[in-house]
Amino acid sequence: MSEFDAVDVIRTKRDGARLSDEQIDGVIDAYTRRLIPDEQMSALLMAIFLRGMHPGELTRWTAAMIDSGVRMDLSTVDRRTVDKHSTGGVGDKITLPLAPLVAACGAAVPQLSGRGLGHTGGTLDKLESIPGWRATVSNADYLAQLRDVGAVVCAAGDDLAPADKLLYALRDVTGTVESIPLIASSIMSKKIAEGAEAIVLDVKVGSGAFMKDVETARVLAETMVGLGAAHGVRTIALLTAMDVPLGRTAGNALEVTEAVEVLAGGGPPDVVELTITLAREMLEAVGLSTVDPADALRDGRAMDTWRAMIAAQGGDPDAALPTAPERHVVTAEASGVLTGLDAYAVGVAAWRLGAGRARKEDPVSAVAGVVVLAEPGERVEAGSPLLELHTDDPARIPRALAALHGAVELDGTADRLPLLIDRIGA
Amino acid sequence: MSEFDAVDVIRTKRDGARLSDEQIDGVIDAYTRRLIPDEQMSALLMAIFLRGMHPGELTRWTAAMIDSGVRMDLSTVDRRTVDKHSTGGVGDKITLPLAPLVAACGAAVPQLSGRGLGHTGGTLDKLESIPGWRATVSNADYLAQLRDVGAVVCAAGDDLAPADKLLYALRDVTGTVESIPLIASSIMSKKIAEGAEAIVLDVKVGSGAFMKDVETARVLAETMVGLGAAHGVRTIALLTAMDVPLGRTAGNALEVTEAVEVLAGGGPPDVVELTITLAREMLEAVGLSTVDPADALRDGRAMDTWRAMIAAQGGDPDAALPTAPERHVVTAEASGVLTGLDAYAVGVAAWRLGAGRARKEDPVSAVAGVVVLAEPGERVEAGSPLLELHTDDPARIPRALAALHGAVELDGTADRLPLLIDRIGA
Repeated sequence: MSEFDAVDVIRTKRDGARLSDEQIDGVIDAYTRRLIPDEQMSALLMAIFLRGMHPGELTRWTAAMIDSGVRMDLSTVDRRTVDKHSTGGVGDKITLPLAPLVAACGAAVPQLSGRGLGHTGGTLDKLESIPGWRATVSNADYLAQLRDVGAVVCAAGDDLAPADKLLYALRDVTGTVESIPLIASSIMSKKIAEGAEAIVLDVKVGSGAFMKDVETARVLAETMVGLGAAHGVRTIALLTAMDVPLGRTAGNALEVTEAVEVLAGGGPPDVVELTITLAREMLEAVGLSTVDPADALRDGRAMDTWRAMIAAQGGDPDAALPTAPERHVVTAEASGVLTGLDAYAVGVAAWRLGAGRARKEDPVSAVAGVVVLAEPGERVEAGSPLLELHTDDPARIPRALAALHGAVELDGTADRLPLLIDRIGA
Repeated sequence: MSEFDAVDVIRTKRDGARLSDEQIDGVIDAYTRRLIPDEQMSALLMAIFLRGMHPGELTRWTAAMIDSGVRMDLSTVDRRTVDKHSTGGVGDKITLPLAPLVAACGAAVPQLSGRGLGHTGGTLDKLESIPGWRATVSNADYLAQLRDVGAVVCAAGDDLAPADKLLYALRDVTGTVESIPLIASSIMSKKIAEGAEAIVLDVKVGSGAFMKDVETARVLAETMVGLGAAHGVRTIALLTAMDVPLGRTAGNALEVTEAVEVLAGGGPPDVVELTITLAREMLEAVGLSTVDPADALRDGRAMDTWRAMIAAQGGDPDAALPTAPERHVVTAEASGVLTGLDAYAVGVAAWRLGAGRARKEDPVSAVAGVVVLAEPGERVEAGSPLLELHTDDPARIPRALAALHGAVELDGTADRLPLLIDRIGA
């Protein structure tokens, strides 16, 4: 595509018109092959941000992103295939118990995952706190593990929607992240390319999530459900709460520990409830609704699958996880009912303690994070422990405490979001 | 300015808010020093394109562009200083007779000019068809020529609004050219940095101009007049017609020849009328309205100043100008009244014949262009000559003829624009 054509595409969207199929295919293909420079693509992204996209236009845009790489062929996997994706929340470790649970119930869960960026953690970062565990899996091993174990969580290869990798990095530095069509096409291009028959989306809503309000989250959910359907993939979205952290931990090894508690039949009630709810949706989506995931959690089958899944990628499911050398307890400043614990603040605190990265090249700490000692709804006394901060580096504690300023609410009157807010999709 | 701050500036404008003075100064300064990459600036430009700018915000943006370089000091010039700028039209050679005419009437005209790009010619390209003439003038020679001759038309130095040079090139490839605030700040930053006390703007309207309709042209004119006033420069704008070519020539040496005819007291009536009208505005703007430019044109004083101006920059005012070895006459297909001759088509034809450039690195031909042989309003007979195409290269003629397809209108009923459409400014 020549420079002239790229300017023509930019102008079309800038003036509010719909891009033609040829324009979309041409611009995504040329950008992936680095024939269109970043300054032209960023102008187009800003025009899309401000002008939006027609549903048919977005379907084609997403298809072009999928076609920038390969769409995985899972036909040799002798199970129904279904994946789940979360838009990201603080303490959201649900994939860890969920993937083995759904596999234990008979489906296969092919999850190609990413790293965390900003205040929400990445699933691969969490699993890498397990000694020996490897995020990289060959294509042959991937298919074999899906057949034999039923669940793989590993790093996506370079051939999975490469256009998205480039666009995501560009959006990050050009103020074009928070756009429904751009978010929806980024998520769905990767998930559809993964090749599963069905996708269940967990769209988080609240201070700790990307979507701060229910209405915007609903539009994103509906957009993604529509994109899945347009590509022949059954897609369901749940809108779930992210006003307070999910469970009682935010941080890599800390969240793995909590996930193992859930697989052992314990764990925080919200994590258990959301895991079972999502598992039911996933099984239902591929015609396995006669199986009750609560049974598989109770009787140890999910734990067995977890151990097999970790071992298959070199991890030792019996190894002790690393723990933080430096801890700091945050106490209640007064007595009262703990009515709020701001998820975003807790996420930023965990990030500053070392659990997350600011740039994709940064390393993350396995041990850093936040443990919630008093649950929202509980009565606390002045001086009683509320949070425990974990880190390798005590110098990080003051900045984490600064992030938590005003995060604790006592005797407040605002309504909490219900854990399950809504369900989108047929 | 760090990357984080640039994203913050982009987001502010993207969301429709007004940029702060600090954001504007920071982003222009950092971009000029290449600390902000093109992909961030192009996203900001698209956001400005679609969100617009508040007048105060645009004033600051323009000030920051001026401050990216130097504002010339003309205090050693012992004359009132006034310049003119045209937004560009086909056959617009008005600067050539106008600058010496106004200088002959007692003012000084400091014109730092650019090259042509696209279908409208550049004043420097036209003057360079005069043997020996140099566009580059040292700062000391510039001031001396302004004092002694009263008029300089030369190339702007790299220190005149360097931010505009970078932004202009970026806008060209990112679909962000046609934005009133971006056009207005580009023109006015250069003109204000030039240091004249007053500026008269010739805002062209019609097919051959950047602004196709009177209403958009009026908004641009009002915006530029406001920017001039905000920077303490008296600014007047005339809206003038560009539906048909100005005068009877479009091309470099061809237009110089026509300009010399005007200075000799002849020339096409529209060129003479616009030259005198603009000269009156310029003289009036610096308190010299008792001088009648029509007299200076008639009695040869303007021609004397022209000769001095050309000679001061190494040009030989008596040298024969180069002429085209290849010519092609376009004749009328039928008999009737010539009611229309599309300026844009004639401009593109001249460009394709070699008079203009597609990229700023391209050379231009001194001799190429179009001569209008039958004036709009005239009755023509089938087979009589309408246009003469001039070029170095006969292979260019077919593409020029293709550009002229449908450009000639016989016995049409549409209204022509009056030469002087409106005047903006006090």
